[in-house]
Amino acid sequence: MTEQKSTNVHWHDGEVNREDRTQLLGQKGVTLWFTGLSGSGKSTIAVALEKTLYQHGKLTYRLDGDNIRLGINKNLGFSAQDRSENIRRIGEIAKLFVDAGVIVLASFISPYTVDRDRVRQLHGDAGCDFVEVFVDCSLDQAEIRDPKGLYKKARAGEIKNFTGIDDPYEVPPHPEIHLRSDQMSVEQEVDVIINYLREHAFIAAS
Amino acid sequence: MTEQKSTNVHWHDGEVNREDRTQLLGQKGVTLWFTGLSGSGKSTIAVALEKTLYQHGKLTYRLDGDNIRLGINKNLGFSAQDRSENIRRIGEIAKLFVDAGVIVLASFISPYTVDRDRVRQLHGDAGCDFVEVFVDCSLDQAEIRDPKGLYKKARAGEIKNFTGIDDPYEVPPHPEIHLRSDQMSVEQEVDVIINYLREHAFIAAS
Repeated sequence: MTEQKSTNVHWHDGEVNREDRTQLLGQKGVTLWFTGLSGSGKSTIAVALEKTLYQHGKLTYRLDGDNIRLGINKNLGFSAQDRSENIRRIGEIAKLFVDAGVIVLASFISPYTVDRDRVRQLHGDAGCDFVEVFVDCSLDQAEIRDPKGLYKKARAGEIKNFTGIDDPYEVPPHPEIHLRSDQMSVEQEVDVIINYLREHAFIAAS
Repeated sequence: MTEQKSTNVHWHDGEVNREDRTQLLGQKGVTLWFTGLSGSGKSTIAVALEKTLYQHGKLTYRLDGDNIRLGINKNLGFSAQDRSENIRRIGEIAKLFVDAGVIVLASFISPYTVDRDRVRQLHGDAGCDFVEVFVDCSLDQAEIRDPKGLYKKARAGEIKNFTGIDDPYEVPPHPEIHLRSDQMSVEQEVDVIINYLREHAFIAAS
């Protein structure tokens, strides 16, 4: 363990706040909200991005189905109401992480504009930054990839209300970042996001 | 396509994990769960502790009624069931922060042993560290302090089911840290906790 960041710290009266944590970490917290079809590449991009950011000494945290649906949202099902509450809670958690100074990588299909906009709104209300990353992949391509075999099950009627098959995906009208994941490499996608983070001073430009 | 899928697998093999973040931050994530009567001093200690830890270059995040009840748990009331769900969700969030490498300072009356033990359990199940800090203040003393005027309202019957008045506080049988907040200064309390964190290698000993 090292104390290498201590020298950046300036003391003042009052509670430790978001700005203090920004200074401590040398980064500004932000939620990168990856939305797109199942199989579009959301998690793949998030995993690659977190690795790159780690190599730059940045603190990230990924929120995805694995650590959400089995944890805080294990008492939610897949009704319309529960799916909306699922996204709401994730948004609230992401906001807390941003307040803590962390770069949050949230990967959820989140097919409805109203739910995504609510997450954006609750960030904005708290002065927390929110960046919508549309991972745009054609349904054909996503279905060909079908990494979890879910499209096959949906086509067979074994899964109901599956986004893209018998439930809609509402395309984000104005995402901050639009990635054509069926036309770009993961490395290119990561580069686009890193450049965005630098240009908007979430991480240092160098 | 085939190439991109194998890239996917490659990246997943190299996911950034909790140990990586521990190394990055120079600290080990842990939840410090402050439990005790209203007015016992939980938040006061947490605020003082976070200042001290910040001076040591450590990343902390406080969870308390302000950022929880108004956010993720704003759809919960004060029924027995909702109070239990309140604590459960806070526990799940704290666990995610610990996984991210953060030192979490959670200040909630959390009067029931079963709820606190559930939070301990869900940390343990995920290999996350949990430290129960019993902020032990006599009811007489807490009621004399009454910083928010809540005891007065409870005695007047304006608040029902108030912990210590007409609802029980179950004393933690085996807290990791036991602070007699009616007999210690805040500075002494902070020292006790800092020493604990050092002795258990959550922060460096120096």
